Amino acid sequence: MRHPDAIQRLINRFCALPGVGQKTAQRYAYAVVNMSDEDAKEFAEAIVQVKEEVKFCSVCGNLTDKEVCDICSTRDNSVICVVAQPKDILSIERVAGRTFVYHVLGGTLNPLEGKGPNELRIKQLLGRLDGVKEVIIATNPDVEGEATAVYLARLLKPMGIKVTRIAQGVSMGSEIEYADEVTLTRALESRTEI
Amino acid sequence: MRHPDAIQRLINRFCALPGVGQKTAQRYAYAVVNMSDEDAKEFAEAIVQVKEEVKFCSVCGNLTDKEVCDICSTRDNSVICVVAQPKDILSIERVAGRTFVYHVLGGTLNPLEGKGPNELRIKQLLGRLDGVKEVIIATNPDVEGEATAVYLARLLKPMGIKVTRIAQGVSMGSEIEYADEVTLTRALESRTEI
Repeated sequence: MRHPDAIQRLINRFCALPGVGQKTAQRYAYAVVNMSDEDAKEFAEAIVQVKEEVKFCSVCGNLTDKEVCDICSTRDNSVICVVAQPKDILSIERVAGRTFVYHVLGGTLNPLEGKGPNELRIKQLLGRLDGVKEVIIATNPDVEGEATAVYLARLLKPMGIKVTRIAQGVSMGSEIEYADEVTLTRALESRTEI
Repeated sequence: MRHPDAIQRLINRFCALPGVGQKTAQRYAYAVVNMSDEDAKEFAEAIVQVKEEVKFCSVCGNLTDKEVCDICSTRDNSVICVVAQPKDILSIERVAGRTFVYHVLGGTLNPLEGKGPNELRIKQLLGRLDGVKEVIIATNPDVEGEATAVYLARLLKPMGIKVTRIAQGVSMGSEIEYADEVTLTRALESRTEI
């Protein structure tokens, strides 16, 4: 059986969302069919408005509906936490408690995908280092994230800025038995006195 | 950190989809931010168009963009398969191979939620029984689906129509050790000679 064209088009659109396959997209499309006309209209408007209203903060690159985001405009900027994507800020904010500002790189160094230093917001970072005491590099603990961290450290240290990297080790609640070798090696290397 | 208003509104809309929580909705909303303007606009239009173009087939109640759906308008209607929801048709069509037509009840009998026979499309079923030899009842094998099947059987049998129910038993690939008692009881009761 073919879906009616309109449903098939909506299924294809839902498939463009991360982690959504045919079956899930179909479930979502049928849910839209069952929505009230008003709910569906507001759903569609919410999508359009996000594209119209949301832009990138001109200072840090985070998502915002203002010229400068709430974080940059209200906080002391002596410590900058560097992240790859805006969504990383959400996770860090949940635990960090308004102590520093952010800088979004817009990705990590990845030569295979053509992402060099010029494709990341590194120039913008260099332009906001006045009075900055520490740069915390919070890119993912994978190959690209590590390479980016090393690259930034080499760039910033000669300027007399303290550069730190989030710690890598065994996760809380995990079992050493199942920790991978790289993680366990890092955890041993970075051991701290208690 | 607060999301920009437009993102929060879109997150709330995504949360209305089945099985989507805050975290997934957030992921979807960020994906929309990263879409091209055109893709986002077409996504929004697809939602509006589904509501505008998709309606219910006047004969069987399936979703369609015509007055009478493709299945009803092209197939012999001597066998009608009764289902609770349009999405059930998709699953059955995948295995049944264009052998019968459908009738969507729009739910199952559920007195606790105020769903009685008048809330289901039972009158419409009775109105299309001319020349029908068999009615297959393919509601879910749960309490409401069973009650609906029994109700329909009592209604249709006195009219001289053969009423059948999809078989219930152990699923293919499952293990008897883990089958629940009701399923195993049904499987034994409905045993067939080999």
